[in-house]
Amino acid sequence: MRALHWNGQRLTLDSSYATPLASEQIALVRVHLAGICSTDLQILKGYMGFRGVPGHEFVGSVSEGPGSLLGKRVVGEINFGCGRCENCARGLSRHCPNRSVMGILNADGAFAEYVAVPAANLHLVPDKVSDEEAVFTEPLAAAFEILEQVQLDPGDQVLVLGDGKLGNLCAQVLRLTGANVTALGKHEDKLKLIKRVGVRTILLNDWQPRLFDVVVEATGSPSGLELALSAVRPRGTLVLKSTVAGNHDVSLAPIVINEINVIGSRCGLFAPALEALEEKSVSVTPLIEKVYPLNDGSEAVEHAARRETRKILLRP
Amino acid sequence: MRALHWNGQRLTLDSSYATPLASEQIALVRVHLAGICSTDLQILKGYMGFRGVPGHEFVGSVSEGPGSLLGKRVVGEINFGCGRCENCARGLSRHCPNRSVMGILNADGAFAEYVAVPAANLHLVPDKVSDEEAVFTEPLAAAFEILEQVQLDPGDQVLVLGDGKLGNLCAQVLRLTGANVTALGKHEDKLKLIKRVGVRTILLNDWQPRLFDVVVEATGSPSGLELALSAVRPRGTLVLKSTVAGNHDVSLAPIVINEINVIGSRCGLFAPALEALEEKSVSVTPLIEKVYPLNDGSEAVEHAARRETRKILLRP
Repeated sequence: MRALHWNGQRLTLDSSYATPLASEQIALVRVHLAGICSTDLQILKGYMGFRGVPGHEFVGSVSEGPGSLLGKRVVGEINFGCGRCENCARGLSRHCPNRSVMGILNADGAFAEYVAVPAANLHLVPDKVSDEEAVFTEPLAAAFEILEQVQLDPGDQVLVLGDGKLGNLCAQVLRLTGANVTALGKHEDKLKLIKRVGVRTILLNDWQPRLFDVVVEATGSPSGLELALSAVRPRGTLVLKSTVAGNHDVSLAPIVINEINVIGSRCGLFAPALEALEEKSVSVTPLIEKVYPLNDGSEAVEHAARRETRKILLRP
Repeated sequence: MRALHWNGQRLTLDSSYATPLASEQIALVRVHLAGICSTDLQILKGYMGFRGVPGHEFVGSVSEGPGSLLGKRVVGEINFGCGRCENCARGLSRHCPNRSVMGILNADGAFAEYVAVPAANLHLVPDKVSDEEAVFTEPLAAAFEILEQVQLDPGDQVLVLGDGKLGNLCAQVLRLTGANVTALGKHEDKLKLIKRVGVRTILLNDWQPRLFDVVVEATGSPSGLELALSAVRPRGTLVLKSTVAGNHDVSLAPIVINEINVIGSRCGLFAPALEALEEKSVSVTPLIEKVYPLNDGSEAVEHAARRETRKILLRP
């Protein structure tokens, strides 16, 4: 099959990459669309020391494997747990210490014609959800993860820091709770996208310091943390969404002095994300910038890495 | 009166410092004992830009002020709230944005013959509690604050990082919940003090990495954070107790990847601390290294700043 392969130095199209094998537990999924996210861009800079086929945002259809899934349109949770440890037993395979992670750690990903996914990780895509919407399930689930971790009440003052794709999705999801959500970002055009779905927006240049019950740091930049810390009320909550490669250089004294609750938040469950896509309670397709054929993978990655770019998709 | 005065450069004994005034709301407390804590040492390095009389750990007796308190032995909560804001209304005057803080921010402290304290901040010291025990109420309350913020269950695996006074008190308090508490530190003699109260101890040189449900960072050193982060299980809790002057230089990615809950924890309520002292469920007097007369304040501070030193007290 064709696949984009990362050897640690270069991303190249391999036209005869070995097609993965299916089994009773492992489905072979023909990829319809795959999304390039900033974790992929970090991986192509060396993050996680990954080698193989990147890509963990995808929608496809099952071509081989468990009979009940054959031909079905699916999306897939990206953490492949061992199924035997304490975390897996508690439904937290995304924290399994022995996990592999699609396109990130010890498992090939979706920048290819086919990807192998444990059947247990797959979710059927409702008919009402297009491929262009379904490919956002994984990042949307990461936004819904916040609601698994933080109790938000109607009227709570919430600030989302960052107007990129993750910030956009977080703002939309948090708004569903009835909280008063404000998005703060650097880019007028990106903030417009967020404003369109009914979230109050503020351009960073116009920012007047004030305090919020909950702040979500989704800038993807180390510098976001200091502003985030300054905007949380005493005993308030700061949700960290950005994984930043390298060290922070920041005073953490405000966490102690103001008794802030800092919650790290990563991957989420797919069910609430698919439900929101089916109910059209969130809007994701305006986030798509361009769809590239898989063969133009290098160009697509280059485009995704440019500042101000919305979501770049690959179609194999 | 005599008082130790910090002018931003030097700490000097002033034998004719103005005795503070009492009123119906403000009690004048004759200080029996005052403790030197590491925040005081930071203040004498410039922290908070404080000028005046330092000291916020004290026990004394009311010599002037509200009649019902006259002659009573008291300790006092150190945050003086405005009494009118939202935080004060919620009983969180220690987060009042307009607060002054005894010996730390806009209010003279207890390294003096007398200190003025709002009557609302005072707590009577039970007869069974000696002055030498009562002077630990403030730091002990800071340890009890953790139990206000984190739900600990019997059998939870808890690690306290740091074998200093705060680490010692935290380990003792957390042990009262029935949790399995381990203390990790650098100093054999200090760990012995902790071991004596029934807490398992590990010398840093013998540390074998493993994961805990809850980790309390009480080292007072910026380098403690990295070890603390590495010892929290996925979705576990890290309590930050140390206020460190200056910046941390640390990767915070583990917080996100392992979805750790980081809780800043500062001052606490005095009632549970006084109750524990009365019931003798915690042991504090072995932490006393030496009692100095107020007139030898500079020498006392110098002694307190030496590594390995336990609690230094001042007797005015």
